[in-house]
Amino acid sequence: MRTPTYDELASTWTRLHHLSHLQSIAGWDQAANMPPKGVEARASAMAEMAALLHRMRTDPRLPDQMARAEQEPLSEPQRANLREMQREWRQSNALPESLVQRQQLATSRCEHAWRKQRPANDWRGFLDNFREVLALGREEATLLSAQSGLSRYDALMDRYEPGMTSARLDVVFGEVRQWLPGLIRRVMARQADEKVVQPAGPFPLERQRALCEQAMRLLGFDFEAGRLDVSAHPFCGGVPEDVRMTTRFREDEFLGSLMGTVHETGHGRYEQNLPRDWLGQPLANARSMALHESQSLSFEMQLGSHPGFVRHLAPLVAAAFGPHPAYEPANLHRLLTRVKPGLIRVDADEVTYPAHIILRYEIERPLIEGDIEPEDIPALWDAKMSELLGLDTRGNFKDGPLQDVHWPEALFGYFPCYSLGAMYAAQWFAAMRRAMPDLDARIAGGDFAAVFDWLRENIWTQASRWSTDDLARRASGEVLNPAHFRAHLEARYGG
Amino acid sequence: MRTPTYDELASTWTRLHHLSHLQSIAGWDQAANMPPKGVEARASAMAEMAALLHRMRTDPRLPDQMARAEQEPLSEPQRANLREMQREWRQSNALPESLVQRQQLATSRCEHAWRKQRPANDWRGFLDNFREVLALGREEATLLSAQSGLSRYDALMDRYEPGMTSARLDVVFGEVRQWLPGLIRRVMARQADEKVVQPAGPFPLERQRALCEQAMRLLGFDFEAGRLDVSAHPFCGGVPEDVRMTTRFREDEFLGSLMGTVHETGHGRYEQNLPRDWLGQPLANARSMALHESQSLSFEMQLGSHPGFVRHLAPLVAAAFGPHPAYEPANLHRLLTRVKPGLIRVDADEVTYPAHIILRYEIERPLIEGDIEPEDIPALWDAKMSELLGLDTRGNFKDGPLQDVHWPEALFGYFPCYSLGAMYAAQWFAAMRRAMPDLDARIAGGDFAAVFDWLRENIWTQASRWSTDDLARRASGEVLNPAHFRAHLEARYGG
Repeated sequence: MRTPTYDELASTWTRLHHLSHLQSIAGWDQAANMPPKGVEARASAMAEMAALLHRMRTDPRLPDQMARAEQEPLSEPQRANLREMQREWRQSNALPESLVQRQQLATSRCEHAWRKQRPANDWRGFLDNFREVLALGREEATLLSAQSGLSRYDALMDRYEPGMTSARLDVVFGEVRQWLPGLIRRVMARQADEKVVQPAGPFPLERQRALCEQAMRLLGFDFEAGRLDVSAHPFCGGVPEDVRMTTRFREDEFLGSLMGTVHETGHGRYEQNLPRDWLGQPLANARSMALHESQSLSFEMQLGSHPGFVRHLAPLVAAAFGPHPAYEPANLHRLLTRVKPGLIRVDADEVTYPAHIILRYEIERPLIEGDIEPEDIPALWDAKMSELLGLDTRGNFKDGPLQDVHWPEALFGYFPCYSLGAMYAAQWFAAMRRAMPDLDARIAGGDFAAVFDWLRENIWTQASRWSTDDLARRASGEVLNPAHFRAHLEARYGG
Repeated sequence: MRTPTYDELASTWTRLHHLSHLQSIAGWDQAANMPPKGVEARASAMAEMAALLHRMRTDPRLPDQMARAEQEPLSEPQRANLREMQREWRQSNALPESLVQRQQLATSRCEHAWRKQRPANDWRGFLDNFREVLALGREEATLLSAQSGLSRYDALMDRYEPGMTSARLDVVFGEVRQWLPGLIRRVMARQADEKVVQPAGPFPLERQRALCEQAMRLLGFDFEAGRLDVSAHPFCGGVPEDVRMTTRFREDEFLGSLMGTVHETGHGRYEQNLPRDWLGQPLANARSMALHESQSLSFEMQLGSHPGFVRHLAPLVAAAFGPHPAYEPANLHRLLTRVKPGLIRVDADEVTYPAHIILRYEIERPLIEGDIEPEDIPALWDAKMSELLGLDTRGNFKDGPLQDVHWPEALFGYFPCYSLGAMYAAQWFAAMRRAMPDLDARIAGGDFAAVFDWLRENIWTQASRWSTDDLARRASGEVLNPAHFRAHLEARYGG
């Protein structure tokens, strides 16, 4: 069956894929290698490419081509691919170029100043720039909302998590809010008597790097198709054919970068196992941010902090730094599952983490909907920190609303994906256990292939072929169900 | 004075500069970082970008714009810039896009296979791919020749060394051919009695890396605007704003990578000191490959192997590896000036090096002109090695015609630039000595700024403002004059 217009669209997307490849590698290089005087030239080069990609994605011939392709005798995956092309088209065309440019300027100014304002605890200085970022974010939300019919916040969230709505989030997070504070209290009481041996540094950086690479090998990362390097903010970049993971090392502490690497390895394997036959087409993209996070948290929390896995990780740690009681499997597992409310989201344990997300969701949503103003953030932040985690954060902006890069960068609607990812990860492992009742024994025996095979078949190779709800149904028999997350926490930490 | 059409052209070239930036960084990454499974995706991405850049450089509106810009009231550097634009235009438009793409595919296939064919001494396997590379190279030469009126080989050489012709080369190389074999014999006879202490390894890689970085600092490389990394084949890449040098290390030998790094540092400083006001415009490009090589050889041979410089290098070597008689300045200098005919060009000393170049020139020129075929290469190679250096290379393809990457990559016409560079470097230092009769004493005293200042003023910041002949006249009072090279060798090695 001939599909000439669809084929033409497909080759446009292949070109986009090739050019984005260079942009991704340059972006990774910027974080991992670039010397300081390269900043300006790199920024100009990447802006030029961004403008070029934007022009290609907003080519006025595309809507007509897409309409004609719809009439062609497409296979089911081709039809799904066309649906994703249309989604990209809508997103790229929703915003006038002038708004995109004003946003780029405002966020880059705000983010740049924030780097110094955060350590200086300068909330007022931050507000001066943030008001403009928020105003433009609201303008974007209004335009996207008018186009999609979603509420303004939902329209922003849809960029990262298509299909998720605040109506659904309110139910999910509302439920978590009910049992979480009690669970935290009970776990803390139980852990109060626990004896935990702390590791003693220094931990030579070269050994940490070798240890991280060993952990990645244990987790099946393909070093023939990717690398591990160092950057100030760890991320998983590059392209599916050549995944560039980064981490950072501190001489006095190794668990953070080790488990951070385990986390990024989940992202990395998702990318490395996207369907090769479709590479370059939107169908082959990772489904959504929450699904991406479900992979990193499957690796870091579900598998990586599983007592059976820690048994196999512990000898690697001991080999790297020399034998020490802290590296006994049982102690290492206690270190990895220690629960303690803290001010900083990125340092939070698995149990308290959702509190940080709920707090941010409950602030950024009314902020976008216009129900509150930036001046209202600190009081709300204080009240919610106290209510959810029992912590006092008054006056401490740098460990409060100034701690994350998301708001200065206008990434409104992104935060929920982190906790949705944790919930999906728990749901995948529940489905795995139904399919393989001996899963925990297999993991304890060092057979992780069972986990990887399930994820490859049900998540990685499915890419964007289905909507998130359909993918979840096919993989686990139901759409997002946070009960699995609660069950996971209660099983691991005690009910 | 308004120059609207010229300004439009200048912004086209700025866009080209930005997009080429990404291509350069991706090219460096390919050599320094890329894991093996990234090959195909990277090749596709870079081919896409090459095609895009080619389309921009062959935009049919350009000739008319350039003709109109010529009528505008341009300043002298603007006029020089327009001349370089026209040169680029002519070069880019001589070739149809299909040829460019076929060449990219053929060279990347040939080069990739060559990496294994060389160690396997597989000349026949290499020929299978190389015939296509040569056929396309001849096609290119014919097209460029038709356009420029140059001979086919000269038309290819003109891409690297504008203004140089085989008629001039025949004179220059013909003269060298007369005195070189005799000089080599005399120097070898003289050095036969010389006592040279050999360094004893192993030389830990991390210390070698630190030593190379110290040498680069001694030579004024700006690490805020560049890096040193490792690749299989050392090169100087990246962009003028962010220069990416590479080297390679062996545990049993350090001088090769140290002096290779000194060599690349010359390339690097040229790039780092191109005129910033003109960056992105063709006027700001390095003048030619021979001039580029005149900088690397000014650093490696003229300065780096100067007994006065070696006095300052020797303590760094001793500090890196511990004191050893081999690192005494006089002995280190003897090591650096040891003359011994060998099979490998990149390992050749300063005196025997031109023989390798003359041999290649005398083979690739008739190869391109169609006077010989690839099958004829081994016999010619053997005859010329025997005649020029007295060495037998029969059957040893891997240390013969398979040793260089240039032919698999279709870089026909490039080899002469190496020896032209050595000649220009000698010419620059002769001019420096006329301007600063105490130059050698200054170098011995550790004042290398005199050298850098002269090069910056006369070469680096002049970029492509003048033709090579004009630049040589302004810098040294005459066009290329190989007598300076002979005088340099006779002064350093004894006549």
